[in-house]
Amino acid sequence: MSAVTNGFEQQLSEPLFDRVLIIGMGLIGSSIARAVMMKRIAGTLIACDASEQVLDRGRALNIADEVTGDAATAAASADLIIFAVPVGANAGVARLVGPHVKPGAIVSDTGSVKAQVIAAIAPHLPTGVALVPAHPVAGTEYSGPDAGFATLFINRWCILTPPDGTDKTAIAKVQGFWEALGSNVEIMSAEHHDLVLAITSHVPHLIAYNIVGTADDLEAVTQSEVIKFSAGGFRDFTRIAASDPTMWRDVFLHNKTAVLEMLGRFTEDLIALQRKIRHGDGEGLFDLFTRTRAIRRSIIEQGQETAAPDFGRSKSHQK
Amino acid sequence: MSAVTNGFEQQLSEPLFDRVLIIGMGLIGSSIARAVMMKRIAGTLIACDASEQVLDRGRALNIADEVTGDAATAAASADLIIFAVPVGANAGVARLVGPHVKPGAIVSDTGSVKAQVIAAIAPHLPTGVALVPAHPVAGTEYSGPDAGFATLFINRWCILTPPDGTDKTAIAKVQGFWEALGSNVEIMSAEHHDLVLAITSHVPHLIAYNIVGTADDLEAVTQSEVIKFSAGGFRDFTRIAASDPTMWRDVFLHNKTAVLEMLGRFTEDLIALQRKIRHGDGEGLFDLFTRTRAIRRSIIEQGQETAAPDFGRSKSHQK
Repeated sequence: MSAVTNGFEQQLSEPLFDRVLIIGMGLIGSSIARAVMMKRIAGTLIACDASEQVLDRGRALNIADEVTGDAATAAASADLIIFAVPVGANAGVARLVGPHVKPGAIVSDTGSVKAQVIAAIAPHLPTGVALVPAHPVAGTEYSGPDAGFATLFINRWCILTPPDGTDKTAIAKVQGFWEALGSNVEIMSAEHHDLVLAITSHVPHLIAYNIVGTADDLEAVTQSEVIKFSAGGFRDFTRIAASDPTMWRDVFLHNKTAVLEMLGRFTEDLIALQRKIRHGDGEGLFDLFTRTRAIRRSIIEQGQETAAPDFGRSKSHQK
Repeated sequence: MSAVTNGFEQQLSEPLFDRVLIIGMGLIGSSIARAVMMKRIAGTLIACDASEQVLDRGRALNIADEVTGDAATAAASADLIIFAVPVGANAGVARLVGPHVKPGAIVSDTGSVKAQVIAAIAPHLPTGVALVPAHPVAGTEYSGPDAGFATLFINRWCILTPPDGTDKTAIAKVQGFWEALGSNVEIMSAEHHDLVLAITSHVPHLIAYNIVGTADDLEAVTQSEVIKFSAGGFRDFTRIAASDPTMWRDVFLHNKTAVLEMLGRFTEDLIALQRKIRHGDGEGLFDLFTRTRAIRRSIIEQGQETAAPDFGRSKSHQK
């Protein structure tokens, strides 16, 4: 464990929850599991997945105290249940485990979309169960149980979007859980979350996927040339365009309105920029290109990005 | 010097050129200068810049054997002259130094645009001077003499675009120069270069600048929220959107046709993708999102990108 984690690996003096169940052992679920185990945030951690292969990996990795394919049974005794599945899978999981959740328990998730996830989960929960949706704004372009790591959430933001009237103690407990994972917590409405993430995450992913697709479809420029000369900027986009296809398909299907709104603005601005190029408006281009530098400076200052040139990667892949 | 440079720092047994002049001490010019000095690629290296402040930094950094503001005089005795200035500045530099270049000397550049750069430089060169335009596809988002480093070009591609009829010995010498800097060299026509770079570099920069601008202009989402939650994907784009505004203004003004062509394709594809979202075409989205993964894999396999999750930056900026 490196010095940058500043003692993160230290165990809590006592667990925050008696029994925690994580459903889904992908990048996010398995990262949460690793951090919960490392810091003993749960008395007992149970991890669950729909795939036999993933369950086997989970057992081999000692990802939790118990690894099971039976979510419904595990849910019956859990105090905190976290759905860490693609957004479109939440309704099915909720239908399966919802009726078994005990009163006083808390259900949460990790989805990148919130309004539709609440609509998918809430109807399946018994009275007395609190729903505190969460979205850890963290990740990498890799997927699956082997891709996770305990420090993924350190100094990242986790957004909670509890519906009106959610039990305040439950909200505080979920906030404490994410703070124990090293995150900063912010609370906002699901609707606002979906708008914020549309511009900070969903549309960026969409245009990254799109330009990689455009480059792949060219006739005048070969794929081999695109690959060779990708260090000119293109390769930056391929990182997020290598993210999990199922997760991202579901994000776009479930945050349609906000994505279309932000995408409309992006396209409008792009057409205006295209017009500046066509008409040789150097001053207009220069103004935009200067303004955009300030935002990166702020992101670095607030610890959300490295200041190392080229993300620091230049040093890691020279042959 | 780290192990990844594999003995790059070793000096040549004899210099490739007697006197080399680099005009412009920005990120690229100062990186070339550092590598030329380290490996003794030139008998004598002269570095030149139009800015007094940059000249002072160049002297303080011992960036070359001689640092001068007088490009015309330096050009008269140089065997290789490299213009490392924003694309739009080439015509002015060529007008200034062209008449002084001695027969048998080679003039080159480092611009991201080639056809218009050749048109800007060639008319000012005396008979007997070879023009071998070059474009090292390498860089970072930082600018100026302090941002350069000697290993910037290792394992990156450098594209040469000599006009028809260029002296073959001159081409081979410039190729040898870039290979000594650690680059792989490819030769193609200026027109094809401009098309390839439009999709691998220019349009990616444009859409990065554009989305940062769109995010900056929102009313419903605050700038503070954009910054906080940028780890969801947005921050990736801010890196290239922090690149030098003068350089990039000039690129778009001088590669207009190819950029507009590639941008037209990008927008067309984006509109089609938008339609898939609006109509809930999950299969269409999934297909694209799967296809794009393969390209990143190839880029990594060919040593043009790191395989480390999140560019490896996760480890470098946790607080």
